[in-house]
Amino acid sequence: MQVTVPRPDVKGRTEILKWYLNKIKFDSAIDPEIIARGTVGFSGAELENLVNQAALKAAVDGKDMVTMKELEFSKDKILMGPERRSVEIDKKNKTITAYHESGHAIVAYYTKDAMPINKATIMPRGPTLGHVSLLPENDRWSETRSQLLAQMDVSMGGRVAEELIFGSENITTGASSDFDSATKIAKMMVTRFGMSEKLGVMTYADQSKLSPETQAAIEQEVRVLLRDSYERAKNILKTHTKEHKNLADALLTYETLDAKEIQMIMNGKKLEPR
Amino acid sequence: MQVTVPRPDVKGRTEILKWYLNKIKFDSAIDPEIIARGTVGFSGAELENLVNQAALKAAVDGKDMVTMKELEFSKDKILMGPERRSVEIDKKNKTITAYHESGHAIVAYYTKDAMPINKATIMPRGPTLGHVSLLPENDRWSETRSQLLAQMDVSMGGRVAEELIFGSENITTGASSDFDSATKIAKMMVTRFGMSEKLGVMTYADQSKLSPETQAAIEQEVRVLLRDSYERAKNILKTHTKEHKNLADALLTYETLDAKEIQMIMNGKKLEPR
Amino acid sequence: MQVTVPRPDVKGRTEILKWYLNKIKFDSAIDPEIIARGTVGFSGAELENLVNQAALKAAVDGKDMVTMKELEFSKDKILMGPERRSVEIDKKNKTITAYHESGHAIVAYYTKDAMPINKATIMPRGPTLGHVSLLPENDRWSETRSQLLAQMDVSMGGRVAEELIFGSENITTGASSDFDSATKIAKMMVTRFGMSEKLGVMTYADQSKLSPETQAAIEQEVRVLLRDSYERAKNILKTHTKEHKNLADALLTYETLDAKEIQMIMNGKKLEPR
Amino acid sequence: MQVTVPRPDVKGRTEILKWYLNKIKFDSAIDPEIIARGTVGFSGAELENLVNQAALKAAVDGKDMVTMKELEFSKDKILMGPERRSVEIDKKNKTITAYHESGHAIVAYYTKDAMPINKATIMPRGPTLGHVSLLPENDRWSETRSQLLAQMDVSMGGRVAEELIFGSENITTGASSDFDSATKIAKMMVTRFGMSEKLGVMTYADQSKLSPETQAAIEQEVRVLLRDSYERAKNILKTHTKEHKNLADALLTYETLDAKEIQMIMNGKKLEPR
Amino acid sequence: MQVTVPRPDVKGRTEILKWYLNKIKFDSAIDPEIIARGTVGFSGAELENLVNQAALKAAVDGKDMVTMKELEFSKDKILMGPERRSVEIDKKNKTITAYHESGHAIVAYYTKDAMPINKATIMPRGPTLGHVSLLPENDRWSETRSQLLAQMDVSMGGRVAEELIFGSENITTGASSDFDSATKIAKMMVTRFGMSEKLGVMTYADQSKLSPETQAAIEQEVRVLLRDSYERAKNILKTHTKEHKNLADALLTYETLDAKEIQMIMNGKKLEPR
Amino acid sequence: MQVTVPRPDVKGRTEILKWYLNKIKFDSAIDPEIIARGTVGFSGAELENLVNQAALKAAVDGKDMVTMKELEFSKDKILMGPERRSVEIDKKNKTITAYHESGHAIVAYYTKDAMPINKATIMPRGPTLGHVSLLPENDRWSETRSQLLAQMDVSMGGRVAEELIFGSENITTGASSDFDSATKIAKMMVTRFGMSEKLGVMTYADQSKLSPETQAAIEQEVRVLLRDSYERAKNILKTHTKEHKNLADALLTYETLDAKEIQMIMNGKKLEPR
Repeated sequence: MQVTVPRPDVKGRTEILKWYLNKIKFDSAIDPEIIARGTVGFSGAELENLVNQAALKAAVDGKDMVTMKELEFSKDKILMGPERRSVEIDKKNKTITAYHESGHAIVAYYTKDAMPINKATIMPRGPTLGHVSLLPENDRWSETRSQLLAQMDVSMGGRVAEELIFGSENITTGASSDFDSATKIAKMMVTRFGMSEKLGVMTYADQSKLSPETQAAIEQEVRVLLRDSYERAKNILKTHTKEHKNLADALLTYETLDAKEIQMIMNGKKLEPR
Repeated sequence: MQVTVPRPDVKGRTEILKWYLNKIKFDSAIDPEIIARGTVGFSGAELENLVNQAALKAAVDGKDMVTMKELEFSKDKILMGPERRSVEIDKKNKTITAYHESGHAIVAYYTKDAMPINKATIMPRGPTLGHVSLLPENDRWSETRSQLLAQMDVSMGGRVAEELIFGSENITTGASSDFDSATKIAKMMVTRFGMSEKLGVMTYADQSKLSPETQAAIEQEVRVLLRDSYERAKNILKTHTKEHKNLADALLTYETLDAKEIQMIMNGKKLEPR
Repeated sequence: MQVTVPRPDVKGRTEILKWYLNKIKFDSAIDPEIIARGTVGFSGAELENLVNQAALKAAVDGKDMVTMKELEFSKDKILMGPERRSVEIDKKNKTITAYHESGHAIVAYYTKDAMPINKATIMPRGPTLGHVSLLPENDRWSETRSQLLAQMDVSMGGRVAEELIFGSENITTGASSDFDSATKIAKMMVTRFGMSEKLGVMTYADQSKLSPETQAAIEQEVRVLLRDSYERAKNILKTHTKEHKNLADALLTYETLDAKEIQMIMNGKKLEPR
Repeated sequence: MQVTVPRPDVKGRTEILKWYLNKIKFDSAIDPEIIARGTVGFSGAELENLVNQAALKAAVDGKDMVTMKELEFSKDKILMGPERRSVEIDKKNKTITAYHESGHAIVAYYTKDAMPINKATIMPRGPTLGHVSLLPENDRWSETRSQLLAQMDVSMGGRVAEELIFGSENITTGASSDFDSATKIAKMMVTRFGMSEKLGVMTYADQSKLSPETQAAIEQEVRVLLRDSYERAKNILKTHTKEHKNLADALLTYETLDAKEIQMIMNGKKLEPR
Repeated sequence: MQVTVPRPDVKGRTEILKWYLNKIKFDSAIDPEIIARGTVGFSGAELENLVNQAALKAAVDGKDMVTMKELEFSKDKILMGPERRSVEIDKKNKTITAYHESGHAIVAYYTKDAMPINKATIMPRGPTLGHVSLLPENDRWSETRSQLLAQMDVSMGGRVAEELIFGSENITTGASSDFDSATKIAKMMVTRFGMSEKLGVMTYADQSKLSPETQAAIEQEVRVLLRDSYERAKNILKTHTKEHKNLADALLTYETLDAKEIQMIMNGKKLEPR
Repeated sequence: MQVTVPRPDVKGRTEILKWYLNKIKFDSAIDPEIIARGTVGFSGAELENLVNQAALKAAVDGKDMVTMKELEFSKDKILMGPERRSVEIDKKNKTITAYHESGHAIVAYYTKDAMPINKATIMPRGPTLGHVSLLPENDRWSETRSQLLAQMDVSMGGRVAEELIFGSENITTGASSDFDSATKIAKMMVTRFGMSEKLGVMTYADQSKLSPETQAAIEQEVRVLLRDSYERAKNILKTHTKEHKNLADALLTYETLDAKEIQMIMNGKKLEPR
């Protein structure tokens, strides 16, 4: 009988993190559950590594305890590769990136079923110039149609921002992986989850063996889902140009913003100078 | 000459179960045939394992004999992996699951050629949040068109429930494997069993070598069979909203219901508190 | 130079059977040629095995000689796997099987170019619930268009019987392999034997490399050949409902009928109780 | 530099045959060139084998020298497998075969660019019930459009004969390999030799990579070439029913006819009884 | 955790080049950053090789220090293979090449978002008769739609020049790799970067599994992008015939021109004789 | 770094040939450059072999020095396999071959951008009955549209000759490889060189992944290019029937003609008897 130890769920991850944290000196303000929610799919060993890397970082920085900041740093390093502080991005690219990432954040902020924002940054890391991370409120066993659409809309936010701010001749190649994610979700909705009126509650297992007719119908449905998603994202960004600009400016000033700081900016408040 | 020992049929499985049960202390209320009917495809070795696991469970729970409950527990563990009692499912997901599983059960209950219900549960197990198990009355040598349609309708019951109770924006990804099963049955009806007027009594062995025309005709027929099945399931759940609600409530209260308890609820009776 | 010993023809098989029979004690009523005609494609070694298995069966049953019955038993065991006497088939399935097999037999009986019936049975054997065996009058070097159509019609007889007797909602999955055989013959007629007006005297070697147009034309021709065959079978069974019922009843009573017994029933005679 | 010894041409084969014949006792009436013309593609070693087999046959038959007959026998054995004298073909199949083979012969005889007939037989050999062999007048370096069409027409003669003599319901599966040969020639004409007005002087190297449009056009052209060929063959056999009947009768009487005997029958003469 | 050392960026390459240059005697006029910008994707080891080859060349030529010229020579040798000074190109081919390469240069010069020209040459090297090299101003993290179109236009410049100067019957096969590059960019715009109105913001991962409809739409969009690019290039070359001729003449005279020399010619100045 | 020694160009080949010739006794009339021009793609080792084979031939023929004739003989043997002097081709095939090869030669002679004729022969060699060899004036770095069309026209000349002289029923299979060459050129023009108005300046890398629409358009363009080429060749041969006949007659008389002799015949002069 096949036996595999399942990866721990959010409750399990919280317990494991607490256990490892208790072996080191750490800031009492740390909320292990928030880290747990942001590490879906981590094994116990990977969580141990996360705490160790954070402790190392604290030591290197001459701190006497691990804080939330070191844990976030460590998580990002594991998930996306090391920071590339030495990289010099020119002003123009930095600005494009700031508006692109703010685009994702603004759409996430104003879309009902999107996951809450955890962080936004324009610090280059691995092959990317910036990113926005979201936090599922629970381990997700299944997702509703609304939640899937919201994920697509957030993905669209980056390119929409480029188009609105810099004009359609200056849209960049940088939205390619956003489109990949959104395309995958839309395809699943149509071919696996029975969420397309036209294709029905049938599943389409091997897409390379379908009739051209059905194949074309699937592609058309996916294209329409993506187009509608793009339009929803555009509506949001057109309505919230001020918040968009404020957020991009803040990213250009502070490089990285956490959930609380983003909330302040959305409320029209200024951040204190660091 | 190739010789393979065939898997025992229902009669054989009953005998084997009796033989192993006689080696341990067991409740005289146990009906080996019911277990036999729910273990189609088990080999002798697997039936031995079933009894052993049940005995182990009874020992762990400090019982002095094996009852039907331990045997059912053991069967589920073998078929679907261990229970995940520690998993915390939020209220919203528990409710969706209760209505989804009740949807399957209600359609099975009111469909003439469906197999009788054995159990319904919203206890997470392996990768699923809940399930309904049915019991074939006999080892099935062949199945009628009506029986195949009934199987499809029962599969549809879960998603239909989600749509009727929570609205079409809140349908979830959880019906994907139900659609897979129903799609497989419908495809077999059209391509192997000569049960489609339009495609005729021809068999379509290798579907990747057909003309696009025929391929499209098959997909269209399958889609229509599934759509009609969905509508039949919807009619049943619309007609029996009260029973549906009662069953979902009972699942939320008791987590697992056996055949007798389900019958009581369908008859409008209350279950005694456990 | 490649040399393979060819399988013996009917004359060769008769000689070989005689040679092995002469080594054992056997009923003088045995006609080796009939066995030979029913064992097309057997090698000498396989014919030896046939006689040995028959002798073994006779010994087990306490008989002092091998009769036609043991030889038939042995042939069926080699061709289709052992009998499954222990299998309990419920009344409903037995009845469906009896009408299904009688359907094959009736169509064979009333179709001019069909091969003569050798035996009909509803004794489960291997994976099947029953079967009808036919006997070619000669080793067939080639077959006429009429003979091919007759083979298809006989294949159709089973499902047609189900539809006429039990209604189209109760047709079963059991005709799948009949449709496979008929589909193969029809495809050969169209693609290899130049027997389709529309596709002409061209051969279509690798069907996966054809134009969709031709592919669709082939499928359409095959579908029409099968549909017409189904209609011919239906006409026969509609015309001979009484014989059909009598034969099915006899199968339910006696389980297995040989050529002579089937002939008697077709002539409206009763079989003596066994 | 790659070096392969080429197979000998007709001149070479004649020399080689003479050389080997001079080692044995042989009938001075033997014309080595006729044997050479009927053994295109034979290597020197295969020609040696041919003479040896003929000598062996003469020895077995108690002859004191090898004649043309032994050489022909030996060639047929090498090319088509041993004779199957023991096979009993029923009257009906013998008759069909006689008319089928005569059909090939008659078309060959009356078609201007066909190769001259060497022999016709209804002696079963290997997997076939009979055959007609033709003799190219020279080693062919290239062939004209007329010669290719003639080869196709001769192939069609067999089935046309079946249809005209026994009716279209009694056409057999036996023309399948004739259609294969004719289909191959027609395909080459269209795709390699630029002999189709419609497809032009373009070559179509890998037919599985063409557009469906072109693929369909090729199949259509091939089908038309074959249909026209069938019609030409039918015209010839309709015009020469008497010769056809005479030739079939002679085959039924004498089993094998050589070029001279066939010529006599075409001239309306009787053969002397053997 | 997978770790790969990333290739150095422009800043890193500049540092590495300086480090190696400091080990040899070199012209103080060398600007390491210009070399760094022209060696995107070089590893540290490859940069070391670049400096070594330059030093070797200087030694061979009897120079006492490495100048920009040796570094450019070394870079070209590494990227494109050794020069083929011994090759004799006839006058006609030299002229075609001069106009072809000037075509690329003129389009690059007059297109807003094209990269600046670094060098143009008609010295045969490896398999090519000449080339124009451009220099990105920064390491490019992403590219705008305008920059992609500009790259395509520059690619088109070569063939457009041939057509305008020598007439459409004398266009050569030499633009094939230019078309390859432009086709690749256009395909990416349509299938990965969401830059086609018609195909939308969907990504088309595996183009061999798409419906023929979508496949055709993609090819049509790509074709239109290329056609428009060709027209833009043609407009530029029609407008700047004088500059085109001057540049081609200069190439025929001096064989290789650097950025400064090209700028002089565009400004209508004469180059000093070398 | 990958390093492959490039094959020598025409200048290099001339030098190498001179070097090897200087080691043997040779006719001072030999022009090494002509040999060099006819041996595009030969390595140094293959050129050495060429001279050695020529020396060997001279020795065998009892000559005291190598002349142009031995070098040509040796080149042909290396490129096309040994002569087959012993082969007896009948009169009819010899005549067809003479007109076929003359067809190629006449078209080459009267087409502006075709390469000059080097030799024509009807001596069988390897698998062919004859051939015409042409000589590029230079190593070709790239080719113009006109030159590509001229190559196609020359290929067509053979079949056109057959059709005009012997009638369309007597065209042979012998033009198959001519059509292959012409088809390849036409395909490259359309798919790689951007020389088709309709398909544009796009390259079509993997033709098996294109949409059926584009695939069909490519095939159509190729077919039209070939048809037009065939017509141009036909016009030339219709205009020059006298030269065509004279050249064919000369080939039948002398078997092989060199460039000078062909020129004489085109000028209406008689060749001296050999």
